[in-house]
Amino acid sequence: MKICVINPNTSSGMTSHIREELVKVKSPATELKVVCPARGPETIECAVDEAYAVPEMLKLVAGAQQDGFDAVVIACFSDPGLDGAKELATIPVIGIGEASIHAAAMLGAKFTVITPVKRRVPTRIRQALDLVCQHRLASVRSLDLSVAQSESDSDLTINTLLDVVGSAVEEDGAEVIVLGCAGMTGYTEQIEKQYGVVVIDPCTVALKFAESFVALRLGQSKTGHFAMPPAKLYRV
Amino acid sequence: MKICVINPNTSSGMTSHIREELVKVKSPATELKVVCPARGPETIECAVDEAYAVPEMLKLVAGAQQDGFDAVVIACFSDPGLDGAKELATIPVIGIGEASIHAAAMLGAKFTVITPVKRRVPTRIRQALDLVCQHRLASVRSLDLSVAQSESDSDLTINTLLDVVGSAVEEDGAEVIVLGCAGMTGYTEQIEKQYGVVVIDPCTVALKFAESFVALRLGQSKTGHFAMPPAKLYRV
Amino acid sequence: MKICVINPNTSSGMTSHIREELVKVKSPATELKVVCPARGPETIECAVDEAYAVPEMLKLVAGAQQDGFDAVVIACFSDPGLDGAKELATIPVIGIGEASIHAAAMLGAKFTVITPVKRRVPTRIRQALDLVCQHRLASVRSLDLSVAQSESDSDLTINTLLDVVGSAVEEDGAEVIVLGCAGMTGYTEQIEKQYGVVVIDPCTVALKFAESFVALRLGQSKTGHFAMPPAKLYRV
Amino acid sequence: MKICVINPNTSSGMTSHIREELVKVKSPATELKVVCPARGPETIECAVDEAYAVPEMLKLVAGAQQDGFDAVVIACFSDPGLDGAKELATIPVIGIGEASIHAAAMLGAKFTVITPVKRRVPTRIRQALDLVCQHRLASVRSLDLSVAQSESDSDLTINTLLDVVGSAVEEDGAEVIVLGCAGMTGYTEQIEKQYGVVVIDPCTVALKFAESFVALRLGQSKTGHFAMPPAKLYRV
Amino acid sequence: MKICVINPNTSSGMTSHIREELVKVKSPATELKVVCPARGPETIECAVDEAYAVPEMLKLVAGAQQDGFDAVVIACFSDPGLDGAKELATIPVIGIGEASIHAAAMLGAKFTVITPVKRRVPTRIRQALDLVCQHRLASVRSLDLSVAQSESDSDLTINTLLDVVGSAVEEDGAEVIVLGCAGMTGYTEQIEKQYGVVVIDPCTVALKFAESFVALRLGQSKTGHFAMPPAKLYRV
Amino acid sequence: MKICVINPNTSSGMTSHIREELVKVKSPATELKVVCPARGPETIECAVDEAYAVPEMLKLVAGAQQDGFDAVVIACFSDPGLDGAKELATIPVIGIGEASIHAAAMLGAKFTVITPVKRRVPTRIRQALDLVCQHRLASVRSLDLSVAQSESDSDLTINTLLDVVGSAVEEDGAEVIVLGCAGMTGYTEQIEKQYGVVVIDPCTVALKFAESFVALRLGQSKTGHFAMPPAKLYRV
Repeated sequence: MKICVINPNTSSGMTSHIREELVKVKSPATELKVVCPARGPETIECAVDEAYAVPEMLKLVAGAQQDGFDAVVIACFSDPGLDGAKELATIPVIGIGEASIHAAAMLGAKFTVITPVKRRVPTRIRQALDLVCQHRLASVRSLDLSVAQSESDSDLTINTLLDVVGSAVEEDGAEVIVLGCAGMTGYTEQIEKQYGVVVIDPCTVALKFAESFVALRLGQSKTGHFAMPPAKLYRV
Repeated sequence: MKICVINPNTSSGMTSHIREELVKVKSPATELKVVCPARGPETIECAVDEAYAVPEMLKLVAGAQQDGFDAVVIACFSDPGLDGAKELATIPVIGIGEASIHAAAMLGAKFTVITPVKRRVPTRIRQALDLVCQHRLASVRSLDLSVAQSESDSDLTINTLLDVVGSAVEEDGAEVIVLGCAGMTGYTEQIEKQYGVVVIDPCTVALKFAESFVALRLGQSKTGHFAMPPAKLYRV
Repeated sequence: MKICVINPNTSSGMTSHIREELVKVKSPATELKVVCPARGPETIECAVDEAYAVPEMLKLVAGAQQDGFDAVVIACFSDPGLDGAKELATIPVIGIGEASIHAAAMLGAKFTVITPVKRRVPTRIRQALDLVCQHRLASVRSLDLSVAQSESDSDLTINTLLDVVGSAVEEDGAEVIVLGCAGMTGYTEQIEKQYGVVVIDPCTVALKFAESFVALRLGQSKTGHFAMPPAKLYRV
Repeated sequence: MKICVINPNTSSGMTSHIREELVKVKSPATELKVVCPARGPETIECAVDEAYAVPEMLKLVAGAQQDGFDAVVIACFSDPGLDGAKELATIPVIGIGEASIHAAAMLGAKFTVITPVKRRVPTRIRQALDLVCQHRLASVRSLDLSVAQSESDSDLTINTLLDVVGSAVEEDGAEVIVLGCAGMTGYTEQIEKQYGVVVIDPCTVALKFAESFVALRLGQSKTGHFAMPPAKLYRV
Repeated sequence: MKICVINPNTSSGMTSHIREELVKVKSPATELKVVCPARGPETIECAVDEAYAVPEMLKLVAGAQQDGFDAVVIACFSDPGLDGAKELATIPVIGIGEASIHAAAMLGAKFTVITPVKRRVPTRIRQALDLVCQHRLASVRSLDLSVAQSESDSDLTINTLLDVVGSAVEEDGAEVIVLGCAGMTGYTEQIEKQYGVVVIDPCTVALKFAESFVALRLGQSKTGHFAMPPAKLYRV
Repeated sequence: MKICVINPNTSSGMTSHIREELVKVKSPATELKVVCPARGPETIECAVDEAYAVPEMLKLVAGAQQDGFDAVVIACFSDPGLDGAKELATIPVIGIGEASIHAAAMLGAKFTVITPVKRRVPTRIRQALDLVCQHRLASVRSLDLSVAQSESDSDLTINTLLDVVGSAVEEDGAEVIVLGCAGMTGYTEQIEKQYGVVVIDPCTVALKFAESFVALRLGQSKTGHFAMPPAKLYRV
């Protein structure tokens, strides 16, 4: 099967990083493509960034469907434009946010989402509460680092990350940690080692769920909320 | 004070219609401008439409702030791009969806939102439950008409609308009706006459709340979720 | 338009204070009257106080309607007797609690309500959760001062208030502060200056919303929950 | 032990009726007094009725405590003034609404509250959702009769009641029926016979819970929300 | 009336302890039997313990019904097998968890459940939220002691218990404390004395509610969720 | 990888049926074993059935871990004994109920769970609300057939099933249907054809999610709620 992973920001570095992680866990039979748009913001840290990233991303979704891919994964934790992508495609489209939050709810009584940027905490809470039962969510905690910082200064990132996970475990009762940003992916083992908790790397879970849905011939329902967009006049 | 109302779709007809309604209710001292983008979808009926409408709309928001407006109203019931608009501006930005849903919760024990398109019912429910206490929401009911139909065939629209409101009142206990589409605005009095319920025209409520916030020097908080977007590289 | 603001306690000092604040923000065209009952408790700090204040307050509501007022504002944050007032009147009746809590939900991702008396924290939580979506409420925090203290010792009040707001911002993620007592009103600017958050003075928001509803000819629905009380035998 | 049951309306007929029912189920050792105020509304059908009934009721609560009663039951389903009564007394005060709703949640997976007056449906929902988990509540259904009708025309009442219970069972999955008005009490057996469901007469459950709390020396906590009202100036 | 209290673990010590407490508060007319199974785990600290305890417990429930008891109380705070017990019996079956949590919601604005074992905190939260309105629950706090520890080392238990209750009162606003384990029962008075809060011993409340339901001829509804199990093949 | 699927009832027919379905969708590299206990109820239709099935099932879970399996799937929609199984094992254990409900929430805005037995509707609602956000659940609807009927009379089953799905789609807005019983599995295509909705066969989704978790080396967190059961005395 062919799966297209779309990183909606324009960072080729992060795109490569995602590719490296996913190649390790994909099924042997899966043909994997990881892409990002040529135009748009280099990181996605707020609603304005999302707004400018989504139209380009949707074009990549439409392209993936046309090119015969069997599924699409949107590789940004806030699942920007996910509803639109599910409308546009008949092949399954999965967001790494939704996949990892649902997985977290199966792997522990309570999970914490770690997000780099503090201002996004309310967005992360709203996202989780739109997906799973509220008492599953232990907390959302932020590193209080920009996406750029969390990518460039790895010592700062890992130390902050370990501190924040420690608070989530001690104070909020987190049993599972969801790493809400691709920049944190490499630190999974270190966290597991220190705290014994389960750590979820959202991209990998989303890829495996995408493989699962393709194998089962399941995709988003096209009868209602995710029906194809009606034809209409677009002024250009 | 100067208030800019932005209709995020590109229908000049609907924009004029909104202007006519708002001129009737604005404060004498309010200087009102009602605009729509030159590019983008002519109606907003799904997430894909929103995705393509929002970037153009955000430019109008930024422009309004630069041009010295005191507040912005986003005149599409689904409040597309509202979070981004609140980030971009330091002047208050209000969505007609949020304004009318909060007003409805003050004017009755239970309200129903009427939406033209059936597929958008889940979106309307999610929107309302993200704003107000769930037992305030009597129901979301759809006309099962496209936005285009609801604008072109007024007999069909009013008859369907009266039927649907009747069901909301009888079966769901609605005491207040929120008209979730600009195309329904002209029928307010007819509904009130037939059922005695309170009918909310979202654009008008949003305009008056915008005037209120300007008068009180209140706007969205810039300390957290709606802080200015961080500067960053946008590839073009 | 003529708006009657009713302070349900019998403190003429607080009534004057409210009047002074509201005169500053009312529309030029608004004729404003601010009154309080002659009989009843001087402050409202618990359910018993509310019980004794409400019957007198309802008489003032009925009087305001008879005297041709266009709207009534109930100026006590706990919105005592608000449902009854909405039943009695056909003109719009707005509580300062509901108005400011709905406004807060539009102006930030999370808000905190500050209440003077500690014992009223559960009441404030219940009130907020009956109005808006629960994840909007960052917290309710109390000054742990009596209404009387918070009115008499302004140094103690402002210092305590700044401390408590600091905790709400730091620990609870509050972006908007709702001042849940008329005694705190004068400190709005100082809080805004120190923390950058938006501070809501409930009386002023309620007045502007009342002006808005009158301008739009909107009032509480009389078809259900707020229908006129049925005629009946009152033993006296 | 001595228990005082206070019917907050001024109907001596209903008061006698409650007394007759309770005498049958009280413990032999319980000394029972059932009273109503001399002044106030004869029935309680809306918030205004509650507002006028409560101050008189609170005086009876204070009197019961002074007269050495061990507990008080407030015998009106909407639990008017219950918080105030719990503040005023150190002896346990129980509302028949809260007692029967908590009991219903123990006796079935889903319960329906039957209320005489249609306009009170939202109040009943709010009351139930403030007490028990929302998925326990199958529905609130009204007879659409006034309290007066439901007391005077017993044929109409029982037929309507049986119809409404039938709908609750068939359509809402109710396994337990809570009779939300003293006027319906006599029909318990007929409903149980026809539908097999459990029917709760709120006054009787509240009396037994009051006896239970007295036996266990339990009462409302006086450390927070139900602390004694602070002394203050009441203008008279 | 005859009431059978079943401790689902096999500790005869704890069974005796429960018997001693209940003898003090039962009605004079109540014939009380307190039993435990001969086989199964000695303490119930996790879901596996529950799984092995429940089949034996259900046999005791069936036996109690056959032996002419009027009600059954399941005396383990997590209410293991309660739904099954309610199915099996036509006499009322009450869990000490559900009884005490509903009682707590009547006796204060907010209650805290104290549980001995830390890992069970999520189970306690889920249990409470399945019964009562979420804003009633101040918190669940654990002693972080095993059931065995909390039974053997009384000094450690009482000191830990007082500390934990102190945190619940100070930090979570608890007005009522529910002791979620039989091992804590003896310390009720000491906690009340130190903090002034109401302390609920679950076994005693459940017994009194059982007496109440028997007196009122109420039991779990047999029309739906708790209907008798259908006859079927059990392979042995 | 080796995956053990445990059907907790003792029906070898249903066990074979599950095996046949799963063989079709397992990954080529997966070694699959589908088993059921030798002792216990032949179908699981109520809490009593669950209580007797679970101890035998837990022995099979422990055996699977000892025998070197990489994951366990519990193949009964009500996820009986799932928490205990997750405690006992260090390999991932997944319930078909949880897996399919989380999948449904990713594949549509609203899903309906179909359950054979009417009395289990409240259990299904509680299960779903403990997993996912409540506005995702369109409804739970029952065939009102026993598990035995739904297995023996296929004409009755499919006709009833199509009717019930029709109601879910038309009245409840279901976009995804979760077949809450193994007896319904063969009818997936017929439903999809007639209504266009997505139909989820829980066993298959759970198997693919189990394969996913094994591939990612993820399992339930052992730090809290699902920690190994403490050693203790079991009386036999």
